Parts: sequence; C-alpha cells; structure tokens
Amino acid sequence: MADINSHIEIGVTTGPIRGSRKVYVGERRVAMREIELEPSSGEPPVRVYDTSGPYSDPDAQIDINTGLPQLRREWIMARGDVEDYEAREVKPEDNGQLGPDRSGGVPGYPNVVKRPLRAKAGQNVSQMHYARKGIVTPEMEYVATRENLGREMAREAASGGESYGAAIPSLVTPEFVRDEVARGRAIIPNNINHPETEPMAIGRNFLVKINANIGNSAVASDVASEVDKMVWATRWGADTVMDLSTGRNIHDTREWIIRNSSVPIGTVPIYQALEKVGGVAEDLTWEIFRDTLIEQAEQGVDYFTIHAGVRLPYVPMAAKRVTGIVSRGGSIMAKWCLAHHKESFLYEHFDDITEIMKAYDIAYSLGDGLRPGSIADANDEAQFAELYTLGELTHRAWKEDVQVMIEGPGHVPMHKIKENMDKQLEVCGEAPFYTLGPLVTDIAPGYDHITSGIGAAQIGWYGTAMLCYVTPKEHLGLPDRDDVKVGVVTYKLAAHAADLAKGHPAAQLRDDALSKARFEFRWRDQFNLSLDPETAEEYHDQTLPAEGAKTAHFCSMCGPKFCSMQISQEVRDFAAKQNQSSDGFIMAQQSGADAAEASRKAAEEGMREMAEKYAEKGSELYLPAEE
Amino acid sequence: MADINSHIEIGVTTGPIRGSRKVYVGERRVAMREIELEPSSGEPPVRVYDTSGPYSDPDAQIDINTGLPQLRREWIMARGDVEDYEAREVKPEDNGQLGPDRSGGVPGYPNVVKRPLRAKAGQNVSQMHYARKGIVTPEMEYVATRENLGREMAREAASGGESYGAAIPSLVTPEFVRDEVARGRAIIPNNINHPETEPMAIGRNFLVKINANIGNSAVASDVASEVDKMVWATRWGADTVMDLSTGRNIHDTREWIIRNSSVPIGTVPIYQALEKVGGVAEDLTWEIFRDTLIEQAEQGVDYFTIHAGVRLPYVPMAAKRVTGIVSRGGSIMAKWCLAHHKESFLYEHFDDITEIMKAYDIAYSLGDGLRPGSIADANDEAQFAELYTLGELTHRAWKEDVQVMIEGPGHVPMHKIKENMDKQLEVCGEAPFYTLGPLVTDIAPGYDHITSGIGAAQIGWYGTAMLCYVTPKEHLGLPDRDDVKVGVVTYKLAAHAADLAKGHPAAQLRDDALSKARFEFRWRDQFNLSLDPETAEEYHDQTLPAEGAKTAHFCSMCGPKFCSMQISQEVRDFAAKQNQSSDGFIMAQQSGADAAEASRKAAEEGMREMAEKYAEKGSELYLPAEE
Repeated sequence: MADINSHIEIGVTTGPIRGSRKVYVGERRVAMREIELEPSSGEPPVRVYDTSGPYSDPDAQIDINTGLPQLRREWIMARGDVEDYEAREVKPEDNGQLGPDRSGGVPGYPNVVKRPLRAKAGQNVSQMHYARKGIVTPEMEYVATRENLGREMAREAASGGESYGAAIPSLVTPEFVRDEVARGRAIIPNNINHPETEPMAIGRNFLVKINANIGNSAVASDVASEVDKMVWATRWGADTVMDLSTGRNIHDTREWIIRNSSVPIGTVPIYQALEKVGGVAEDLTWEIFRDTLIEQAEQGVDYFTIHAGVRLPYVPMAAKRVTGIVSRGGSIMAKWCLAHHKESFLYEHFDDITEIMKAYDIAYSLGDGLRPGSIADANDEAQFAELYTLGELTHRAWKEDVQVMIEGPGHVPMHKIKENMDKQLEVCGEAPFYTLGPLVTDIAPGYDHITSGIGAAQIGWYGTAMLCYVTPKEHLGLPDRDDVKVGVVTYKLAAHAADLAKGHPAAQLRDDALSKARFEFRWRDQFNLSLDPETAEEYHDQTLPAEGAKTAHFCSMCGPKFCSMQISQEVRDFAAKQNQSSDGFIMAQQSGADAAEASRKAAEEGMREMAEKYAEKGSELYLPAEE
Repeated sequence: MADINSHIEIGVTTGPIRGSRKVYVGERRVAMREIELEPSSGEPPVRVYDTSGPYSDPDAQIDINTGLPQLRREWIMARGDVEDYEAREVKPEDNGQLGPDRSGGVPGYPNVVKRPLRAKAGQNVSQMHYARKGIVTPEMEYVATRENLGREMAREAASGGESYGAAIPSLVTPEFVRDEVARGRAIIPNNINHPETEPMAIGRNFLVKINANIGNSAVASDVASEVDKMVWATRWGADTVMDLSTGRNIHDTREWIIRNSSVPIGTVPIYQALEKVGGVAEDLTWEIFRDTLIEQAEQGVDYFTIHAGVRLPYVPMAAKRVTGIVSRGGSIMAKWCLAHHKESFLYEHFDDITEIMKAYDIAYSLGDGLRPGSIADANDEAQFAELYTLGELTHRAWKEDVQVMIEGPGHVPMHKIKENMDKQLEVCGEAPFYTLGPLVTDIAPGYDHITSGIGAAQIGWYGTAMLCYVTPKEHLGLPDRDDVKVGVVTYKLAAHAADLAKGHPAAQLRDDALSKARFEFRWRDQFNLSLDPETAEEYHDQTLPAEGAKTAHFCSMCGPKFCSMQISQEVRDFAAKQNQSSDGFIMAQQSGADAAEASRKAAEEGMREMAEKYAEKGSELYLPAEE
C-alpha cells in the first residue's frame, strides 16, 4: 500500500496485484491482468478480467487531487454532439444542512470541472441511441475486447453449461455488443461527465458483473475512507461502485470518488434530495429532486437508482408484510405518497427524468423499493406489482433510447429465486437484472455475504447480469475495508460460478489453471491464480510457514509422507509410462449398472495386460524418466 | 469458556449459548434450546435444534476424564441382544510407529472400557434390523421428538417448497422414523459402544444435517485442541463429527473424542491402517484393516467411511483427469490396487466388513474415493463408475440390515449438481447422500467454505441428507478453532436454506421470528435468534458500540433521523389505524401487466378514500394510541 501525497491525506492501495502484471490489449488498449505461471508449468500466462484501473499499474501516475486520466474524453468529443456549459452552482444544502461548517472535514475537490458536458439541444448521447443508429462506438469496441478475454484460447472447449435461454457467443464482436445494447439486453453505463471510466457492459450475454456499495452515513465514515474503499473494492473486482452516502458532505464526497474511479459510479439521488429537505420525506418536491439529478449528472454519475415503481396504490400492500418496506428509497417514496396521498412524483415525472438521462447518458437502475426484506415476504404482491410497473417504465425509457437495468431482491428462499428471474425477463423485455443477493435465509446475520452469495450465484446462473454485493456487516453496521474485500471476493466467486454454470466459453480456463497448479504443488501459482492471493498464502502459512513448504510436494493435510495428490500423480505417470491410453477403459455413456458392469469387465481385461507390463518393468510406481 | 479441571488440561467451552436455555422435551428428554424473546414482542420462546450436548447445560457435570453420561446404555442393554467381552488389546502401532514415545504428548484415556459390547452370536443390533422387524426403538422415538421441533406450531403454515420428490411429513412420528430407517432412506448412526450419543437421523425426509471434520495430522495438532474443536463444532451446530486424524496417537485421540461426544463420530479406518504399515499403502492387508475396524468398533465409532467403490478397473480412469484422485482414502486404495494389480480388498471383503458393522451397529458411509477434485473432473466416468459400485454395495449391505449412506463430491459446477443427486437416488435406492460441498468453482482458495456452501445449499435442496462442511482453510492448511466455527455456521445456514426450499413445515419459523425482531428493532432478539449471536453482536457494536444503541430504534446504516424500517412501521400503523384491512388492495393472482393495471385501478379507488380519512385525522403518520 502506498500513501499518496495529496492536498488531503487519502491513502489508496496501488501497485500490481500479487503475481500479476498489467497489460493493455488491442487498439483500444483494454486493461487486463496477466498472471505468470512458474516456468516448470510449461503453460502460458493466464489473462484475467481487471477492474482495478490505473492503480495496479506501476507506471501510472496516481494523484488523488488530480483524478484519473480521461480515457474517454476524446471519444466523447469526437462525436460532435455535446456542448459544455456553465455548471450549476454548488449550494450549501448539497452537502447537507447540519450546521454552518459544511465541510465537516471534507475539503472541496480541488479540480472540479467548471464546464460540464451535455447533449446539444435535440441530441441524445446514450450508447443505446448510437447502437440503434447502427453506430459501433469506441466504448463498444472496448467492451468487446474486454469481454473476449480468453475466448480465443477456449474456442475448442465445450462449454456444456445450462444458460436458460441466454445467447452467449463464442466470440464477442463490437457488432455483437452494439446489437445487445440496441436491444436493451445490455447497458454500458458511461456518463459523458465521467470520462475516466474504462467501459464495461452489464447484460445477460456478458460476464456476470458485481457491484460494491460504499458511502458515508449520518453516524460514521469520512471521505478518505470512502475513496480508499472505492479503490480497494475495484482492486478486488468490483465492476461498478455505488456511492450510497447519506448525511453530510454528500456532494464533495461524491466528487472525490468519481474523479478517482475507473468504474461506473451509481447513486440513489433521492438520498441526497432527502438531506436537502432535512430528512423530512414529505417535504421532497420534484423541483428539488430534479435539481439533484442535474447536480449529480454534471459530476458524472453513471447510473441512477430511481424508485419510480413505488406507486401510491402499492404502498398499503406492504402493510401486511413481516418486514414492510426495507428499501430506503422505497420507504422515502412510500412516506411521501402516504403523506400527500398523491402518485409518486418519480412516476409522474418519469419522462422528464428520461430527458435528463439522455442528455448525459446516464443509465436507469430502476429501483425495487418494494423488495422483500425477509423470507416471509418474498415474491409477494407488492414486489411483483412494482416489477410490472418497472417493466412499463423500461419500455418508456427505451422509446427515448435511454439505457435501463432493473433492480431485484432481496430475501428469497431458493425455490422462489427462479420465478424472480423469469418474471423479470418477461416483464422487462430482457433488460439487465441487477439483484441484491438474494439472501436465502434470514437467520445468519454476520454471515449474510454467504446467505446472499448462495442466492446470487443461483440468480446469476439463471440470467442476472449484475450482482450487488452484501458484506458480513449487512443488517448490523457499516462495512469497513476488510468487509468490503470479503464482500467483493464472495461476489466475484458467485459471479464466476454463474459464468461457469451458464457455459461461458472461457470461464473454466482459470479454474483449470488453478487446479493444475494445485495438483502439481505449484503453491505460488495456486495463490496467484486465486481471487485473493494474499489470504490464500496467509492461510497456507499459518500451518506451514516455512518458505520451503511453498515448493514442497506436500500439504499440511496429509503431511510429507503420504499425499493423495502425489499418489494420483503416480497413477497418471504409471498410465502414461505404460504408453497405454486410458481410452481402453472409457466407460461408454452409462445408462445404468448393467452398462457399468459390462464396461468394468472390458476394463478388467485391459488391467490384466497392464499388470503384466507393470510387473515386467519392476513394479515401481516411479519409473526412470525417458525409459 | 470454562477450563475444566482434568487429569490432562483440556479446555472446552461450556455454559448456555447466549440468549437461550437448555430444555428437555418429552418422555425421552430430548435436548433442545429455547430462545427467549423480549417481553415486548409478545411472542413465545423459539425452540431450535440443539447439537451442543450437555456442555451447554449449566446443570450438567462436565468432566473430560470421565466422559459424558451414557444416555443410551439402558436402551441397549434392555434389548437383550448384546454381550460384553474382553477388549482387543491396544498395540503400539495403534498410535503410530513414529519412535518409542508412543504417547507423543497424548496420555491414554483414563476411563477406557475394558469390556465393550457386541451383538450376541447370530444377532444383528442395527437400527435398520429393528426397524425391519417392526420395532420402534427408543432411539427412533428420540429422533421423532427431536425432528418435530416446531412442527406443531407450524401446522397451519403452508410450506410451498419444492422438495424434488422427498416425502416430508407434517408431523414426524416414531413410526415414520422406523419406516424411513427400514427402507434405508434414513440412518441413525449409533454404535452400541458409544452410548453417550443423543440419537439423530440422516435422511432426505428429515432436517438437513451437517458434519464437521476434525483430527490431528502428521504435521500439526494435539489431542487437547481436537477435543476442544469437537465440543466447539457441536456447540455451533455440527450434527456429526468425523475424526480424520493421521500420524501419531490416533487411537488415544479418538478415545478422548468419543467419550466426550454426544454426536455420532465417523472415521476413515484406512487412515489408521495406513499408519500401522508406516504409510506404505501397498503393505496394507485385509487382516490389518479388519483389526483396525474391530479396534475402532470397540471404541464406539458410529460410522465408517469405506472406500470399497475404488475398484481396480476404475483407477486408470482417473489418469486423464486434471486433478487425478484427491480423496486420501481413494488414493490409498488406488495405489494398493495398482501395486498389487488386484481388486481392492475392501471390495473383495465387503461382506466381511458388513458382519462387523451389524455386530456393533456401525453405519456405512460408502466413500467416494474417485470424487472430482476440480471443476474439470466433475461428473466424469471415474466418478460415476464408482457410484454404480456404491449402489451395488448399498444393496448388499441392506440385505444384512446394515445402515448405509453414500458420500458424494467434491468440485461440481452448478449446472452439474442436480445430476449427482438424481443419479445417486436412482443408483443407491434413496440411501442418504452425504456430500462434501460441492465447490462450485476452483478459483477461490481461502473462501472455499463459501464456494462449497453455494453447492451445499443446492444439493441439500435437491435431496442430500448431510452436508460435510468445508472450512476457509480447505486446500491450504489445517482449520483452527475459528475456522471450525466459520465452517459450521456456513453449513448450518446452507442446510437451513435447503430446509426452507424443500418446504420443511417448521423451518421458516426461525426466519420469521428473527425478521420480526429486526423489523421491530429488538436487537438482542435478533442476535440471539441468529446462528452466531456473538458475531452478530460484535459486528453491530463495531459501528454503534453504545449499550443504548441496542434498544434504539435505528441502525447504523440510516442513522437516527431516517430509517426505512421505521417508515414501514408507520405505513403499517397507518393501515391498521384506518381500521381498513389491506385486503382491499390485494392484487389478484397476477398473470400479466393487464391484471396488475386493473388491480392498480381498484387500489387507487381505495386510496382516495384513505386519503380523505387521513386528512380528516390531521395528516399525521403517528396517530395517538387508542384513538
């Protein structure tokens, strides 16, 4: 970890992720990581998807006060459809109203853009708009290269997954990306005022993505730790980050985060709007909300969670639930609706919001304000009533070529998960689904990264495009740095398990490389290929700390004398040395014990021959090499 | 934690699990835990399944040197079919051959039974044998009461699960238990020389169980920490414990564990047999193995993992795998088969083993020596060839009324999990399946409790009866106390998620109680109802350490000013106060957006009325009580 000298002291973690180096691939210089294997393996480096941004590049100049390089600036300007203009003035209430000291310890960002970009009058700068006009943008090209990762290598590999109707190509072309975005099956969240992003796609036919939530709250946190958490979360694999700050200094905190983030940033604008009215939901107005959208659009937020599906008639449906309304945005809108006895202003002004979205290319993340907060409430009428409205809104946004994804639950027992996915696909026209977990039981607070990881892996398999992480602190407190890492790694493994099960053509390459390393006792390769090399090595060293043990051909479970991995190696060596393919023993497609028995007899025949050969050669498991 | 005064210093954790008290239910005095809720809740205590044994009973006298009370002794003797006899003499090699100091720091157990029990000549003392004769044993009665937990309360509750063909009753009767054991669909592992056990059942139509592995190894561990881990694992929910010790002092370590365990103990006898021949697999003989079985049978091991399915012809099938043979028992037998070019002596002597099993009522756990050790090897010919043989052996054991369960993988991607379950049910005649995970990806060493917890929850849902835990140290090192707890809690939550998804009639009671506590800000109830109250409270306190915060009506995520839970409560209060049932807003079974729209209109109508009433009453969300 390196502490960066900056006007304010914000330490972020930089430098290569252990055992890997940054590479830039193709014309668009797409960032990836390459994990070099030990020469003894005779295998090429393994390329892995990389969300860590310039921070893991030792050649990158990192200055938190300047922000990241603006990779996309040129692409945006080259399209000729944007203009710069005088930014909305920052108001005291943008940072909360808790007394005269509006800084609250958070200095304003030193490098604020004074003239943000927006679409010229009558123009639409969304990736969906370009896609539908048949234009392949540099962003789409970047995504294609990024998603292709390993696919060339894997072309031969049979995927064999069950994709539940997804259409995962054997090779991702820029044209494929364009088509997916045009159909609304994928989004590339990329505010034109956040040119620091490395483009990425969220969609069922791409790799399953994960989101990490950060954000200060009314009772804890500060900007330094939030920026650090953002960099930390992306280092371990967060594809997007949501800044869910509440309380003070929301505006300035967000500016620090966006300027230093190479991944798309999402927010829930109603949180900030609520702070502007002193936390009194019923005092919210469309005008205050709209002003907040513009404020955040100019800063560069890439997607907005908008709880426009929490409609007045649905609110009482939550009254008979075990846990009512657990979405913060949902309950704000429910309270507003009840207090005014009016339809939600988000719903009423949806088309006005869409106009803002298309002027900056902000994607909708249609919020599930009525998601179930407990197993008892899963898949109930309130939840699905809202989902139907989200479907209606999806089609309204699509009419204006605005990108949309749909947020999903929550707490759902396993047997009710698939219904969520199926309904969402049907009602929302295959717009990407973005779910929180779901948690498959309520009884394990402190372990809800796991209860939700179980649900996340399943719903990702069924077709969810992005999984919102849950940390061990869920329901209990604010995640610290360690919690963020555990949440991210848990969700990376869940997303990867989903990619494997869907039959992603290249997903298994990393599993195979790691398993081979494990089998051959290349401990360092095993650590480096894992999602969290540091923890893997630390755990190993707790039992066998000696440096020599990392190259030793045994592990702590069996000890030096006997090792099952070693014996399997002997079995393999033996089979190979006998120059006899094991094909002679291949059991034909087994349909029952009879086939097995027949096959077994054939195998026994072969074994007798082998036994003789083995005896001839002196009955040694280790035969001299090059015999 | 209390350190017990004993001849050797073995500290084990005693005393009630926080927030709960031990209760003994019914004629058989079945141990359970009751979690008392805050009086404000107005709810009865929640009864939960309890594996912690006498250790969590403050009235129990715990003396590690004496062992636990022999709950079942009387039941066993009353059947009149056993005799005691002179125990086999303990030999030096029983504790390993690594030098003259055979104690290696482990003293012999002070209270060894000199005259163990066995079936009288011609008798069979297995629970399956009694069951098939129509006898309902006290063990079956105990199991019925234990499994019934909460079912009376839940009779009204619709289960709504998807059980994949399981036959879970709304109430478990002793006769139901007998029938399941007679059919071979469930086992009650209960060696007559381990009368300290509290009987439990493993079967698809009972609660999903979990196993924790402990055991010293050639490079680490000692007896004190293994006994402590056993008690610790059962405290958090392990239904059985396997002692997988290798290296020195295996015999004495096991004695300490069994005498102090109230849960069934399983072993892999081939591990000890291997130590007896100095770790040289090819020196193993049937005679040494048989002697080891008798040795362990007399000590009271409740189930034996026997890798009798690793047959000579299958061994070469593993040669072309990415990770060969990863089962330690499987590789021992593979090496033996290759070295001798003979069929496995376990397979050849299977019926001889069965004779021993029925003399002590030891259950088979037919080992999956050829389970896949990587995603690449899942569901391959070696694995399924062995499974077919396990099916054959199951029926052979059943002919002699010996209880059987079947071990399963391993590493399996999600889309291949169900095939494992389906094949196992078909081939093994519904004998209980007992799986290790499976891990759904290989790329997360350090997090394999999670990669495997995902697979475990799914395969448990599909019908697996017992899930063998995996700790965070899997593949890397030996689990310590903390790892054991994390592994157990992870598997408890996976097993519970499976029970929920299968539609177990009472499973959701605990979820509902916890969620209600969460919704009502009964923090202490939320902690106490969770699988790990200590961790839940610790995490909460990291953000809000003040004692007052535990009763405060807010949490750290939203802060005191705004809280979504609080708003939902207001929504509910409002609906209730209006004396208007929310039924008026119930959306009929939704078949599509049209139905939703129609229903929405009806709901709007109702809302207008409510709005008027609300305005009449002064537009307050909190109305005065008892208005």
